[in-house]
Amino acid sequence: MNTNRQDAVTVLGLGLMGEALAHAFLRAGHPTTVWNRSPGRADRLVAEGARLAGSAAEAVAASPLVVVCLTGYDAVHDLLAPLEKTLDGRVLVNLTSGTSGAARETAAWAESRGAGYLDGAIMAVPQSIGTDDGLILYSGPRPVFDRYEPVLLGLGAKATYLGTDPGLSSLYDVASLSLSWSVLNGFLQGVALLGTAGVDAATFAAFAKEGLGAVVGWLDGYARQIDDGAYPALDATIDTQRAAMAHIVHESEALGVSAELPRFVKALADRAAAAGHGGSGYAAMIEQFRTPPQETV
Amino acid sequence: MNTNRQDAVTVLGLGLMGEALAHAFLRAGHPTTVWNRSPGRADRLVAEGARLAGSAAEAVAASPLVVVCLTGYDAVHDLLAPLEKTLDGRVLVNLTSGTSGAARETAAWAESRGAGYLDGAIMAVPQSIGTDDGLILYSGPRPVFDRYEPVLLGLGAKATYLGTDPGLSSLYDVASLSLSWSVLNGFLQGVALLGTAGVDAATFAAFAKEGLGAVVGWLDGYARQIDDGAYPALDATIDTQRAAMAHIVHESEALGVSAELPRFVKALADRAAAAGHGGSGYAAMIEQFRTPPQETV
Repeated sequence: MNTNRQDAVTVLGLGLMGEALAHAFLRAGHPTTVWNRSPGRADRLVAEGARLAGSAAEAVAASPLVVVCLTGYDAVHDLLAPLEKTLDGRVLVNLTSGTSGAARETAAWAESRGAGYLDGAIMAVPQSIGTDDGLILYSGPRPVFDRYEPVLLGLGAKATYLGTDPGLSSLYDVASLSLSWSVLNGFLQGVALLGTAGVDAATFAAFAKEGLGAVVGWLDGYARQIDDGAYPALDATIDTQRAAMAHIVHESEALGVSAELPRFVKALADRAAAAGHGGSGYAAMIEQFRTPPQETV
Repeated sequence: MNTNRQDAVTVLGLGLMGEALAHAFLRAGHPTTVWNRSPGRADRLVAEGARLAGSAAEAVAASPLVVVCLTGYDAVHDLLAPLEKTLDGRVLVNLTSGTSGAARETAAWAESRGAGYLDGAIMAVPQSIGTDDGLILYSGPRPVFDRYEPVLLGLGAKATYLGTDPGLSSLYDVASLSLSWSVLNGFLQGVALLGTAGVDAATFAAFAKEGLGAVVGWLDGYARQIDDGAYPALDATIDTQRAAMAHIVHESEALGVSAELPRFVKALADRAAAAGHGGSGYAAMIEQFRTPPQETV
């Protein structure tokens, strides 16, 4: 039994990601107890030195740090609710994907049962867990993170603490994903447009990387305007940009590629102009993202 | 008169951008002739040493290189059609914004009149013209670009030649703009989401810049798959990503911020899945950008 060894860890849930987490703990030298609803998933880990607990309660009791990675927060609650007495005095690190609201509720529940709680969001594929590329975001009480940071670094060198609010890891995760898909979609629109002239995607990728460097350089300035709540047009106004957006819609239509993304971009800017921001800089667009559009009657 | 001096240049059109172009030529030491429909726009340039031509014909006749920067291609045609005999043997560099189709038509028209033709797209604000940040894209016959590259570098150190097809500069311009707005919109969605937890935009900007670095690193791999026409899922499948997209829609709705962008992103991915690409990687999404969606009956 690893019970009460300070560096012992437990992993509940052995999907692809949970298995990768347990594997990383083993490689980092931690006594590792695992549990999964279907115990067959543990075979490889047991061969590597993990201990398979006979029940979830036994698994939780085995270590001061309990990492849970299930399919959703409902599964987390179903699993842990009967074990609340065992959780008392331990630290629960919940790496299950879910909303910021669910993370906050689970934190409050765990803390009221005497458990320390960190919520985490894994921004890495299972293959990156335990490597230098393994980015995992954590939020919750700072002392809890500080105490277990050396252990959590075993799951990925990029363990990042975001703040006390346990909802932050989930929010940064969705914010970051949203940005990633937007970049990819913008890239694909460019690939489609240039493809009509026989330019291949690899050629545009090289060009796009340069351009993205420039856009990244603008973010701080836009962020400052957003935080200040004032959006003077330091370069082009939204109205000027709307003309360029209309041009892209027109060009996409003329070339026979999809104009959906350019139309979406322009519709947002048109709304900002209708709200009086035609003469503002692009940072004024934040208001279109903060507030859902009014339904037209 | 500057006529026939090999380094003489003419600028037709003195809007904010045309004025910046003429100013940069003067600073680079070129004998510079300017013309504008309203001659008052030339006063400052004349004070700096520019020669104001009495007519567009006189302006064109003054230099072997004629740069035109007007409000649109219609204005270019109206201005130049009567001057086609004067253009013979000169090089026309058209920096007017327009579609790739208009660029190709204008190139054919100019070349049939004996003029060399380069189309260009200015990806810079007027203040950056003539500086190290002044990015201007050029397309058209390589020998014409090579001959005038030293002169064009006076307009910005990032003069970039894209290829023979005169439509390329315009296409790269719209592709790049499309990407920029997508990045900014993705960033703003993140700012809105994190703002609900009191995280300021500057804090997210710092985080987003790191994340963008990672996304930029994926572009070459996606581009290769697009060029190969095969989209194996090297990390997450589109179906897995659709689940995460649904999660972002849900989170945005729950937090009361606009869910429009997440819904748009998910609808595109849903269509890719319906077209049989649920098990493919994200590169398969290119098909949704290449082909306009079928209208639902």
